[in-house]
Amino acid sequence: MTTPRRRDLANAIRFLAADAVQAANSGHPGMPMGMADMAQVLWGDFLSHNPANPAWCNRDRFVLSNGHGSMLLYALLHLTGYDLPLDELKRFRQLHSRTAGHPEAHATPGVETTTGPLGQGLANAVGFALAEKLLAQRYNREGHAIVDHHTWVFLGDGCLMEGISHEACSLAGTLGLGKLIALYDDNNISIDGEVHGWFTDNTPQRFEAYGWQVIRNVDGHDPEEIGQAIRTAQAETARPTLICCKTTIGFGSPNKAGKESSHGAPLGKDELAATRQALNWPHPAFEIPADIYAGWDARAAGAAREADWSARFERYAAAYPELAAEFSRRIRGELPADFLAHADSYIARLQAEGPTVASRKASQMAIESFAPRLPELIGGSADLAGSNLTLWKGSKSAAGDDADANYVYYGVREFGMSAIANGLALHGGFIPYDATFLVFSDYSRNALRMSALIPARAIHVFTHDSIGLGEDGPTHQPVEHLSSLRYIPGNSLWRPCDAVESAVAWKAAIQRADGPSVLVFSRQNLAHQHRTEEQVADIARGGYVLLDPPEARFDLILIGTGSEVELAMEAARRLDAQGVKARVVSMPNTNVFDAQPLEWREGVLPAWCRKRVAVEAGVTDFWRKYVGLDGAVIGIDSFGASAPADALYQHFGITVERVVEAAKAL
Amino acid sequence: MTTPRRRDLANAIRFLAADAVQAANSGHPGMPMGMADMAQVLWGDFLSHNPANPAWCNRDRFVLSNGHGSMLLYALLHLTGYDLPLDELKRFRQLHSRTAGHPEAHATPGVETTTGPLGQGLANAVGFALAEKLLAQRYNREGHAIVDHHTWVFLGDGCLMEGISHEACSLAGTLGLGKLIALYDDNNISIDGEVHGWFTDNTPQRFEAYGWQVIRNVDGHDPEEIGQAIRTAQAETARPTLICCKTTIGFGSPNKAGKESSHGAPLGKDELAATRQALNWPHPAFEIPADIYAGWDARAAGAAREADWSARFERYAAAYPELAAEFSRRIRGELPADFLAHADSYIARLQAEGPTVASRKASQMAIESFAPRLPELIGGSADLAGSNLTLWKGSKSAAGDDADANYVYYGVREFGMSAIANGLALHGGFIPYDATFLVFSDYSRNALRMSALIPARAIHVFTHDSIGLGEDGPTHQPVEHLSSLRYIPGNSLWRPCDAVESAVAWKAAIQRADGPSVLVFSRQNLAHQHRTEEQVADIARGGYVLLDPPEARFDLILIGTGSEVELAMEAARRLDAQGVKARVVSMPNTNVFDAQPLEWREGVLPAWCRKRVAVEAGVTDFWRKYVGLDGAVIGIDSFGASAPADALYQHFGITVERVVEAAKAL
Repeated sequence: MTTPRRRDLANAIRFLAADAVQAANSGHPGMPMGMADMAQVLWGDFLSHNPANPAWCNRDRFVLSNGHGSMLLYALLHLTGYDLPLDELKRFRQLHSRTAGHPEAHATPGVETTTGPLGQGLANAVGFALAEKLLAQRYNREGHAIVDHHTWVFLGDGCLMEGISHEACSLAGTLGLGKLIALYDDNNISIDGEVHGWFTDNTPQRFEAYGWQVIRNVDGHDPEEIGQAIRTAQAETARPTLICCKTTIGFGSPNKAGKESSHGAPLGKDELAATRQALNWPHPAFEIPADIYAGWDARAAGAAREADWSARFERYAAAYPELAAEFSRRIRGELPADFLAHADSYIARLQAEGPTVASRKASQMAIESFAPRLPELIGGSADLAGSNLTLWKGSKSAAGDDADANYVYYGVREFGMSAIANGLALHGGFIPYDATFLVFSDYSRNALRMSALIPARAIHVFTHDSIGLGEDGPTHQPVEHLSSLRYIPGNSLWRPCDAVESAVAWKAAIQRADGPSVLVFSRQNLAHQHRTEEQVADIARGGYVLLDPPEARFDLILIGTGSEVELAMEAARRLDAQGVKARVVSMPNTNVFDAQPLEWREGVLPAWCRKRVAVEAGVTDFWRKYVGLDGAVIGIDSFGASAPADALYQHFGITVERVVEAAKAL
Repeated sequence: MTTPRRRDLANAIRFLAADAVQAANSGHPGMPMGMADMAQVLWGDFLSHNPANPAWCNRDRFVLSNGHGSMLLYALLHLTGYDLPLDELKRFRQLHSRTAGHPEAHATPGVETTTGPLGQGLANAVGFALAEKLLAQRYNREGHAIVDHHTWVFLGDGCLMEGISHEACSLAGTLGLGKLIALYDDNNISIDGEVHGWFTDNTPQRFEAYGWQVIRNVDGHDPEEIGQAIRTAQAETARPTLICCKTTIGFGSPNKAGKESSHGAPLGKDELAATRQALNWPHPAFEIPADIYAGWDARAAGAAREADWSARFERYAAAYPELAAEFSRRIRGELPADFLAHADSYIARLQAEGPTVASRKASQMAIESFAPRLPELIGGSADLAGSNLTLWKGSKSAAGDDADANYVYYGVREFGMSAIANGLALHGGFIPYDATFLVFSDYSRNALRMSALIPARAIHVFTHDSIGLGEDGPTHQPVEHLSSLRYIPGNSLWRPCDAVESAVAWKAAIQRADGPSVLVFSRQNLAHQHRTEEQVADIARGGYVLLDPPEARFDLILIGTGSEVELAMEAARRLDAQGVKARVVSMPNTNVFDAQPLEWREGVLPAWCRKRVAVEAGVTDFWRKYVGLDGAVIGIDSFGASAPADALYQHFGITVERVVEAAKAL
């Protein structure tokens, strides 16, 4: 076998991509054909990975931020020896294949993150690079660089137009993420055509303004230039690097190269044939010559690379057994052995002490209690630390080189923040929590959705959860947000009613290894609720009986969450005085409650009792799933207003009186 | 009366702001105190406005993008003579006052747009400036500059950190919005403290990369420098200008100036007193000396300014009566007299012809029919024109100087797009429609919310509305979005089932003058539904009976929207064959349906019939409000998958069979 030319190696990507898109009659051939040469150089000469073990913790991370070019990544994974056989490539975009239309981390070995929503892969990559930096700061020792890898990103014009690219790259510059290297596919084309009509940024200048190293004018089809640029990027350790590569979208296609027509549709049979001719690629679809396979095969080198690292890690573990054990535990995503017991004892103590605090304060108290045992917990807020109460005594900024750094001052960058948090979670070694006001979950919303879809073990904290925030007014008052966030599949939204539920929510969020949690807290103080030990345990079910009349039988059920649970409790007392017996159900997490066995749900909300009133300072319709057409819901279906919180609750009628009235009217 | 010093004029703002915040015991004194000198120069020497008529169409637009500094704006409006008496300032942040915590356009005369969610005011301003440019291109004639005003923006570090600032300012540079002038309050402080830990951009360099003129290093407390910078900005007509002003947050406060402690809390009584001392402002709270009032009073100059314009407009109207009439009609927000009749006849024709097309195609057909009569209709898409089908034969890019320009190639900037659209709508003279895939409504979500809150007459088009988009997979498949968008107060979401409902939705959206509409369309073809003339008229009710059994009585109700209406119709036919009589309700707009009189709603969904099945390719819980606990919902509560659309509908069980089964199981 002769050593294949680089161009032929790259052409293997081009035709796997174009042929798979043709077979699926759907997909994006232009980007893989345009970036194939860059991919060949990066994956062939630089990328440190082991196809046999996509979970090797010190691998380089490769992120395809322009995820529509998924076939580029599938081709790379297949060719270099990942568990992604040719049959899967032939089933591109078909049900149950491992080759979805856009890369999905949960579905395909070697896919680091789920991409497609533009700009977010880039932000995830900032998270990966930050994770690497912080783990290296904490665990590396002289002569023991056990954490030492690069994060690579492919991205296109679309990613750079998205606002999140500004947020993430600005912060990456400030944080000096020197091992983050982004390769920009500057092909001058987006879906609507040549970008000069809508995208005329001087991108190199923009990234220099962020404090990045920028390498300009690289010919993205010239392996020498690409290789040289990557070496320059690797040599810079204090700044992230953007490599701007001029490329031709759909490279090789005689009639569609350089045009938007190659972006998002099959080339067509005739054009594919013409492309084969033009690139001198005589092989039929999905047939890759043995020498090409051999040229790509990264298994031996990868295995050696990991073996070398493992040997080095063994030496490290011998020298620093405690650090090594902690590092390994974090990478496995396991909590410290004593964590749950500690959390439970903290919760029991809170129940006994019964503090009346805002749940945002209760959240901070929980962090203060849990975080000293969890070096993997990395916090942050979008410039609202003092309002979100996300700082604790041990918080240390990630901006410097502190070994204990565990807090990111994200700045006013909600979307970037949550997407970076997804990257921190995906990297391994971290459980991130981020924070802003609940209303600004709108800004980060697709990153929250991606947390659930990826899925990423990220904790998203939102404070100021209702009109209870008061004077800042309707721009800052969430109304529809609780319900909207509960509707994201796989999400787990907690809205605790007091300090005890807040601590349980934190415990559950930290425990939840297979997806994100959203923790929603009040600005205002919340009364402590009395509970038996059993009731304390019930909180984790998401919905439970907080109060039953002493007579055991009840006439109706009041359901509340968060700050409205105390209204329900007071309403029950008043109803009782009028001879109406009410059960009160606290429902801090409808997602978790809905996932309980029928017996539990029926035990809490028995079918025989159709007299149900739900109360929550948010849109009412959501609650029809629990109260049906026969029940009543007290809430708010309009925007809020600017006024002190108490005045607003009165004005919008979220009051004990209204709950009592509604109950009696049933 | 002596002429007051500029500093004293500015101090009037400082103390109105600080005293109002103190009185409210809540608010943000730091920004008004820091930007008071800039505001004094801009409003005193440059701003072209008429306090007696905040609706004068050729006024300069002033946007406070850092809306937390609302007291700056209220002070300016009060001092220059708008209908905002001192009593309102004393009631800052109280219920029913005209001085909400953040500026609200619907509540306060002279407030151009509702701000607070950072970065969006800046994007609105881009919309204002674009509106001015396009109206000037279309209506101005040699010697008749009837549209000729500037758009001014105040903004802070927070706005510049937000991703939307990138999207909006990048596009503003490309569009060459020379009359957009932004003044940056570069005070080095954000809520978490000195920004150097999280915001180290070279902002001037960044904006030069966008093609802006940047004026650096202006002393924001030196009126001479500020004035000179503004003159330089005005002299530049081809590029927007960013004026970077170094300021001190909380200027004048001896102990809090330059510190984050002045940002978002009252100064405190002692510090206020010390500030009075330091700034030599002996006047009690809310007492403004007469000479200061006189120095600020803009009423006479404003009235003269508008009178001059009106005289010029009369001359223009004499010379160009048709243009003037059209311009005036657009500014009034009135549709052409024949528009509704035309729309109805188009709808009637569609009903007769019965095309089977994707509703995104039906949307384009409606635009094609309506737009030639509506020069105010300005379209656009976030780089998905060919997928959203937002272009029509008369579309002309807004990037050039075409008099008929009516289409914005927004690039991949969903959030910026919708916030710019809000600005276009607020300016007057335009009804904007913008577009992306439904799943990416997540990216623009807070701008959609702001459309409803402001409210803005904007039409947000979202195509590819379900798993029906197929192979692009779960990152691109909306599931929770329909329900989540319906929950935004004041929103009006249409999801039409065929070409006829699509046209009705477009008509309703164009007609809706007091708020936004969201139009949701399918990727895939939708069958035409038979309707009587009366049923065609019923569509506008949001929910109506599409099919009743010939026997008039029915056993159950099937409710569907969009692509699932045809499933409901086929299910009804199959049930009928089995002797089960079903009514079919098409529910294209639940927001509009919910607002109908009880008789209508009861007529469509009579209380006696609890056997109800809803079917929609989205989360099921939303539909409990119509089917209650006794009904059934067919939908999807998980993420979708990558596969051809038909396979996905089968896989997720959104099928006629499942609807039939569910109906029979009731």
